[in-house]
Amino acid sequence: MSTLSPTPRTTVGREKERAVADRASLHRLLADGLVAHLGVAMGTHPVVLPTAYGVDLDGPDDGGTLYLHGSVAAGWLAAALAGDVCVTLTELDGLVAARSGFNHSMNYRSAVIIGTPRRVDDPAERRRALDLIVDQMVPGRAATLREPTRKELAATVVLALPMAEASMKQRAGGPEDEPEDVAAGIWAGVIPLRRISAGVVTSPDSHSAVPADVRARAEALG
Amino acid sequence: MSTLSPTPRTTVGREKERAVADRASLHRLLADGLVAHLGVAMGTHPVVLPTAYGVDLDGPDDGGTLYLHGSVAAGWLAAALAGDVCVTLTELDGLVAARSGFNHSMNYRSAVIIGTPRRVDDPAERRRALDLIVDQMVPGRAATLREPTRKELAATVVLALPMAEASMKQRAGGPEDEPEDVAAGIWAGVIPLRRISAGVVTSPDSHSAVPADVRARAEALG
Repeated sequence: MSTLSPTPRTTVGREKERAVADRASLHRLLADGLVAHLGVAMGTHPVVLPTAYGVDLDGPDDGGTLYLHGSVAAGWLAAALAGDVCVTLTELDGLVAARSGFNHSMNYRSAVIIGTPRRVDDPAERRRALDLIVDQMVPGRAATLREPTRKELAATVVLALPMAEASMKQRAGGPEDEPEDVAAGIWAGVIPLRRISAGVVTSPDSHSAVPADVRARAEALG
Repeated sequence: MSTLSPTPRTTVGREKERAVADRASLHRLLADGLVAHLGVAMGTHPVVLPTAYGVDLDGPDDGGTLYLHGSVAAGWLAAALAGDVCVTLTELDGLVAARSGFNHSMNYRSAVIIGTPRRVDDPAERRRALDLIVDQMVPGRAATLREPTRKELAATVVLALPMAEASMKQRAGGPEDEPEDVAAGIWAGVIPLRRISAGVVTSPDSHSAVPADVRARAEALG
């Protein structure tokens, strides 16, 4: 699938000019992100939790696979496996300071993925998913670490969410003001935002050099 | 209320050492954040959407009031007014590169607020809420802008969410590794993260100087 083919529940309803239809944009957002927000229906109310994630664009699921993990004791787990969930990724790119409160806005990229998560039981897929989640944080890092123990694997649940049902919105650029506000000579503009790393902090009980993957990640986040 | 008094649905279930009980920490997180994630039950599935917000700690609701706004045409609006919603705020503070995949983590502050939103109809409260949402982006900005028009006000719905039912978790500091991984001499550390502004970009059709509030916001974001 090279395009996002929204279903009724992932069709962008308003501000259609902000809808993004190509999967490549979704893939870039997935690559840029670090934290997703997972929405689960908990009986009488939804719960939204921040979560790490991993991405396998060639994964076994239609549209690629988004992997999440959690403790076997997590309270949201049963609910997530009992119905559909929503995973939302948002990167904030700027504050849009318009000439009126109404036209204030933000520049952002945001994707919504809705689907039925699958509990991953295959040992090879579980290992691969956990490596992808580590590599999302620091690319290349999983390959440098020891194998997980049986106890660690037994404590961890891995969920796979198909990325077939997804939509994306983005806003970029400056304020869109009313002509009379522009004519009035009022200032308007954007405060661009980005996430940076403030270097690397080595643990006090760590006596070896910063690994290349960690150094590269910190430099890339610059 | 000076402490967070979790109900069963906002009690931190796992990693209780990460639970934060004082309202002052929640208030700092609310002050630092720019985007919240709103979870709404849409019949068969939850939807999670990024949203701007405003905060009135002395608002009319128990625990203070979180204000959200949206278009009267927004698809999620009816569902949000028909039941409970969940608003989650997350600030990512660092990537925790441990000595094993299992102990990899993130440093973060995250709050979950669950409640029944109230549609704000009182004109004065609506105006105040919209000003607070603008001021969350750029403190002090609302007071410098023209009044909203009747058409703009009519196009906008304001929701008030009581912050009485809230919980917060945070993680800070370095990796927590297994003693044998530390003894093996493997490196571990943290990549601290923060959000910065890359200055101010004035619109091409804007010919006046950058206002003090916008300049101060960009400087505060660093």
